[in-house]
Amino acid sequence: MALIVQKYGGTSVANLDQIRKVAERIIKVHGAGNNVVVVLSAMAGETNRLIQLAHEIADDPNTRELDVLLATGEQTTVSLLSIMLESMGYPARSLLGYQAEIVTNRAFGRARIAEIRADRVRELLGQGKIVAVAGFQGRDQKGNITTLGRGGSDTSAVALAAALKADVCEIYTDVDGVYTTDPNLCKKARKLDKIYYDEMLEMASLGAKVLQIRAVEFAKKFNVPIHVRSSFKEEEGTMVVEEKEEDMERLVVSGVAYSKDEARITLSKVPDRPGIASKIFTTIAEAGIVVDMIIQNTRKGGLTDLTFTVAKSDYPRAMAMQTDLAKSVGAEQVLGDEHIAKVSVIGVGMRSHSGVAARMFTALAKENINIMMISTSEIKISCVIEEKYTELAVRILHKVFGLDST
Amino acid sequence: MALIVQKYGGTSVANLDQIRKVAERIIKVHGAGNNVVVVLSAMAGETNRLIQLAHEIADDPNTRELDVLLATGEQTTVSLLSIMLESMGYPARSLLGYQAEIVTNRAFGRARIAEIRADRVRELLGQGKIVAVAGFQGRDQKGNITTLGRGGSDTSAVALAAALKADVCEIYTDVDGVYTTDPNLCKKARKLDKIYYDEMLEMASLGAKVLQIRAVEFAKKFNVPIHVRSSFKEEEGTMVVEEKEEDMERLVVSGVAYSKDEARITLSKVPDRPGIASKIFTTIAEAGIVVDMIIQNTRKGGLTDLTFTVAKSDYPRAMAMQTDLAKSVGAEQVLGDEHIAKVSVIGVGMRSHSGVAARMFTALAKENINIMMISTSEIKISCVIEEKYTELAVRILHKVFGLDST
Repeated sequence: MALIVQKYGGTSVANLDQIRKVAERIIKVHGAGNNVVVVLSAMAGETNRLIQLAHEIADDPNTRELDVLLATGEQTTVSLLSIMLESMGYPARSLLGYQAEIVTNRAFGRARIAEIRADRVRELLGQGKIVAVAGFQGRDQKGNITTLGRGGSDTSAVALAAALKADVCEIYTDVDGVYTTDPNLCKKARKLDKIYYDEMLEMASLGAKVLQIRAVEFAKKFNVPIHVRSSFKEEEGTMVVEEKEEDMERLVVSGVAYSKDEARITLSKVPDRPGIASKIFTTIAEAGIVVDMIIQNTRKGGLTDLTFTVAKSDYPRAMAMQTDLAKSVGAEQVLGDEHIAKVSVIGVGMRSHSGVAARMFTALAKENINIMMISTSEIKISCVIEEKYTELAVRILHKVFGLDST
Repeated sequence: MALIVQKYGGTSVANLDQIRKVAERIIKVHGAGNNVVVVLSAMAGETNRLIQLAHEIADDPNTRELDVLLATGEQTTVSLLSIMLESMGYPARSLLGYQAEIVTNRAFGRARIAEIRADRVRELLGQGKIVAVAGFQGRDQKGNITTLGRGGSDTSAVALAAALKADVCEIYTDVDGVYTTDPNLCKKARKLDKIYYDEMLEMASLGAKVLQIRAVEFAKKFNVPIHVRSSFKEEEGTMVVEEKEEDMERLVVSGVAYSKDEARITLSKVPDRPGIASKIFTTIAEAGIVVDMIIQNTRKGGLTDLTFTVAKSDYPRAMAMQTDLAKSVGAEQVLGDEHIAKVSVIGVGMRSHSGVAARMFTALAKENINIMMISTSEIKISCVIEEKYTELAVRILHKVFGLDST
């Protein structure tokens, strides 16, 4: 008898018909003799509706109270699913975040899970019940309702699976697994049977939207196997698992990711003195803007060019700040570019194979794609290129690294 | 500095505009230096919408899970009000039933409050905050969400006022107070400045819909003054308070109530033997049907007629049961009548004044209104009459007992 945690996203519980299908899927797994814990999101669109309602009242709604409001979304879906399961003759019980003892810090709207006690979940499983836990929500030490931020239900599910030492955490979504790259952009994209935590982390942070980064971090830390699969199909999806040595024979690169969500800012001819970079990035950080890539090139004459990327949504603010700052640090010019893209190749195989970077740069050069910035980690290489070459670059890299389906 | 508990019903928080008006009213009271605890219902229509949603899934939705679903209604309004108050610059904090430590028994859908600890409420009041408590909901000893049944928010408010030893519990509603009788039916109805708990209890149980019976019982038990008033007007409403001896000079009758919600069933020529009545009423009780009035007249020859009233909604079931039962107890006939009404006069003055019943019967007789059944208590007299005479009877009694406005 296995213990399986299943998580269904908003599109999987968008209405009563969908919830019925979810119930039928759960019953099949439960009927096969497994213990089942189900984690649900709010109905598709509901969280946005509630946020909008709060914004009709205030531009900047009180964050504690907004979390109380948002928590109703998952409360609704877990109770409806439990009513559905009970009406079909299966014992079910809903638990809200605080009832499942999902304890978080006090950062309303983006709380982090500190601890899951889950005694109540275990007790109910012991009684043979299907337990439906509201995703996305927890409580702080004082009993205030908190929410985990966008996509937080993935994290709820993985954290519960870790606390319960579940055999697997199944993430049901509207795609049928993790692909070598975006199938909308590259027809030869293949569904992966398996991907490692570290690869999935890079994929998620580089633009793939299948899984929340924090959920993967949690899974890695507690070694929870994740099964990403479609809630509309029966077939197997992609397993996200721990890296094993005997797998070293696989392809060097597991996937190609891209992101068009960044913009580039260059401060040219900055005096190359200690404290300048610190001043620039402290100002940016204090404005709550996250910087992704940073590159510094030394010029002649004690001058340097400083280039970095920020999210496109932060670009106008960041540009305005830099223009002000340029004077005070003695930079000659501030240049901005919104029409960039980041393409990346990812694979744990890079740890033991050399030459991946060279192959990537050669492949791009062959197509006359200029590389503006490069950033590497142990298992990924990212290049910033002109936005218009995104699709071409992804297709070329997908082919060069042997990922095309046959 | 007073401590005031205010309760606003569904029509008072039906949309953001209404909630803004509620916020403004609260701010006025808070600004005058009072501590304010606000108890809210769900938006008008929301509880019915959720019940209907659950019934689309199951004819008989699991009661524990239905309570989880219904509790979202008040969770929404308290968070929206708190966001509103905070955005207007006033410190506010919402508390759900379990957070306010409203502990109930485990009777889902109709739970009774066992205890209110309210330490959290006191703590927040001590910090100068306006506390918005979700009405209608609590938790049982195990932490399951429970709801108190229709109109339960009144009970939440009064119980909180009792636990906090509040100076007054203000119930804001869509009428501006308690009237001597239904103003829709009798133009000369007057708003009462004051009414006693016992009178209000009788009024509520005899058909007046202003306050929940359980809320009044709670108020009486803990001597919580209730102020029933309109959320749309500034003027004072009706105080519901403890009886005082110095008030003995008031009118003997405080109000005239009526109900068209009952039906009458008569078993004629029942053998007058021990155990027969027991058999009849045990059967009815086991079916969950509540019997209101019961009358037994002895006939000649060891036979008796047994008449009782039930809610109109239970009438078809009750008639079917009696028809079956009539044979087994040897009754000759079962007669039913749906076209009846109950008119009642209420007043604590009856305790010290005689002749009220005689005046009532005489007044009805003068208009040729036949009395079918009579039931009395220490402070009320009820008569069952033909339904078509309801309005006439109410107006006549209102006049005879000196209640008409001048």
